[in-house]
Amino acid sequence: MSDSVTEFNDYRSRMNEKILADNNKIIKRIFNLDTNAYAEGALDVKTKELLGLVASAVLRCDDCVKYHLETSYKIGLSKDEVVEALSIATLVGGTIVIPHLRRAYEFWDALEQQG
Amino acid sequence: MSDSVTEFNDYRSRMNEKILADNNKIIKRIFNLDTNAYAEGALDVKTKELLGLVASAVLRCDDCVKYHLETSYKIGLSKDEVVEALSIATLVGGTIVIPHLRRAYEFWDALEQQG
Amino acid sequence: MSDSVTEFNDYRSRMNEKILADNNKIIKRIFNLDTNAYAEGALDVKTKELLGLVASAVLRCDDCVKYHLETSYKIGLSKDEVVEALSIATLVGGTIVIPHLRRAYEFWDALEQQG
Amino acid sequence: MSDSVTEFNDYRSRMNEKILADNNKIIKRIFNLDTNAYAEGALDVKTKELLGLVASAVLRCDDCVKYHLETSYKIGLSKDEVVEALSIATLVGGTIVIPHLRRAYEFWDALEQQG
Amino acid sequence: MSDSVTEFNDYRSRMNEKILADNNKIIKRIFNLDTNAYAEGALDVKTKELLGLVASAVLRCDDCVKYHLETSYKIGLSKDEVVEALSIATLVGGTIVIPHLRRAYEFWDALEQQG
Amino acid sequence: MSDSVTEFNDYRSRMNEKILADNNKIIKRIFNLDTNAYAEGALDVKTKELLGLVASAVLRCDDCVKYHLETSYKIGLSKDEVVEALSIATLVGGTIVIPHLRRAYEFWDALEQQG
Repeated sequence: MSDSVTEFNDYRSRMNEKILADNNKIIKRIFNLDTNAYAEGALDVKTKELLGLVASAVLRCDDCVKYHLETSYKIGLSKDEVVEALSIATLVGGTIVIPHLRRAYEFWDALEQQG
Repeated sequence: MSDSVTEFNDYRSRMNEKILADNNKIIKRIFNLDTNAYAEGALDVKTKELLGLVASAVLRCDDCVKYHLETSYKIGLSKDEVVEALSIATLVGGTIVIPHLRRAYEFWDALEQQG
Repeated sequence: MSDSVTEFNDYRSRMNEKILADNNKIIKRIFNLDTNAYAEGALDVKTKELLGLVASAVLRCDDCVKYHLETSYKIGLSKDEVVEALSIATLVGGTIVIPHLRRAYEFWDALEQQG
Repeated sequence: MSDSVTEFNDYRSRMNEKILADNNKIIKRIFNLDTNAYAEGALDVKTKELLGLVASAVLRCDDCVKYHLETSYKIGLSKDEVVEALSIATLVGGTIVIPHLRRAYEFWDALEQQG
Repeated sequence: MSDSVTEFNDYRSRMNEKILADNNKIIKRIFNLDTNAYAEGALDVKTKELLGLVASAVLRCDDCVKYHLETSYKIGLSKDEVVEALSIATLVGGTIVIPHLRRAYEFWDALEQQG
Repeated sequence: MSDSVTEFNDYRSRMNEKILADNNKIIKRIFNLDTNAYAEGALDVKTKELLGLVASAVLRCDDCVKYHLETSYKIGLSKDEVVEALSIATLVGGTIVIPHLRRAYEFWDALEQQG
């Protein structure tokens, strides 16, 4: 697996574990909601993942973008679909989204290299 | 047509006309992109509309939310689909999105009343 | 009760009811968390209310500010305490917070008038 | 003077007075800085006013935009200059700035009508 | 002292010195206000520090969060109190706050290790 | 040339090339607008560059700030002019802009060292 993907996931898992071990109810429930919100419902899983991706991109949260890119990749969204979603994010959020677009492209490349 | 929908659209059209009459190239092109970005491509029109809606909701732009709600309604997205998209926006963007959710519900009601 | 306070609360209640009637699980749980998060815990209720107020003010959500002002008023926080919290919000969030500060002052006056 | 301009200024003055009467030192000093920051320095007054306008527009603070539009108008900035500044704000901040652009145009019209 | 804490403080001090050496009045006064705003007043120092922490967290400013975590630690706020404040930030600001929560936990650990 | 400047520009160019090679029309046109928006018009190039800088600073986009700092440096804006623009950004955007101010100073130093 690509180093940057592994590194991202390792840090994320390690810190999430620490946070959840603390047993703060509000935080635990938000983490729990975060897992449930992207499950199939009135909308299918691919659409919801792209919604999460675009929300993350316009709010300019690189780690959130990476997380949704990885899930998007795993559930079979194509690069074209992902880029089209990101193009809407860039239009709505403006040119300040562009640096995050660069990092999104870099991370997508890393995901493709991990095969 | 519901008064709040008509009022929103009238103001929007009137001011857009004034803005475009000014012939500022950058602004005109951004307006133009805004029309093209939601056209069918790698993603279908319904998905793209929901992406625009969620981006608008997390960035807490009531007028943008209204615009995407109206288009969502016109292209046949169901209330369940729209609400599910907004639920992701509320989770990603936090409880500060809730007041915008209230106004989104109110505007959707107005859209349904206009039939 | 002051008209602006009543109007705010009526709209808020009416729309919350509509939203919750829709039974979207994610939204319902976020509403539920919103009630629990400000309960006495490691921090007392007054401190938590001020934290909610400052978070709302720097994120420039007028309705959220109003909500926390009303609760702050009810649980006996003084105007001095509330204003000091808002001064931190204005410093951290910058002069763009000032218009929200104006509306916060106006709403606090309305709360005091309702006695 | 145009009603919307008068109304905006009256509310602003009335509430600023209330805020300053409270003698919160932090808030008073921020208000004071806000007056000094736009005075002639390494940059001239017109440039600084436009900087305040663009900062306000990308942060989507309508009242701040109005304030800087009024000062811009008074110190003799032309509509072309103001619109060009706002075009940069719209590009950098994205299409969510457009609703604020509409209200900025409306307020500029009101300023011109007051003569 | 933990390396990450030292590194953060060294960079911060070095750059603050450069900025203040420049004698820009507005910036110097904002730095000055930043020192005064968290002093005992109507609210005690611990409450004000938590207000600064939550404002920083919802605005997703890692360096600001670190700064307030360090002061919180020094003035004797417990981890439970800090985490409870951060839980409110995560609820109000949404899941995009979570990556900042991870880095906050990591920095708090570093503070505890420095003893 | 200073290492941090070279590194920033290399990464930027490499990723921009990848993004543009993808031929997403919306993204390509936004990139294109980004080039045109800062050209001489009703406002001169120096003023427009400072508008881009301040917009980037209040939106707290470090890479955007760096880009505008580099162009500002190249077109002959003085450090005093740039710092004065950044002081307005810090006042309007609040103390959360300060960490970005530190990094802006550091990058300006790197630009001066490259001669």
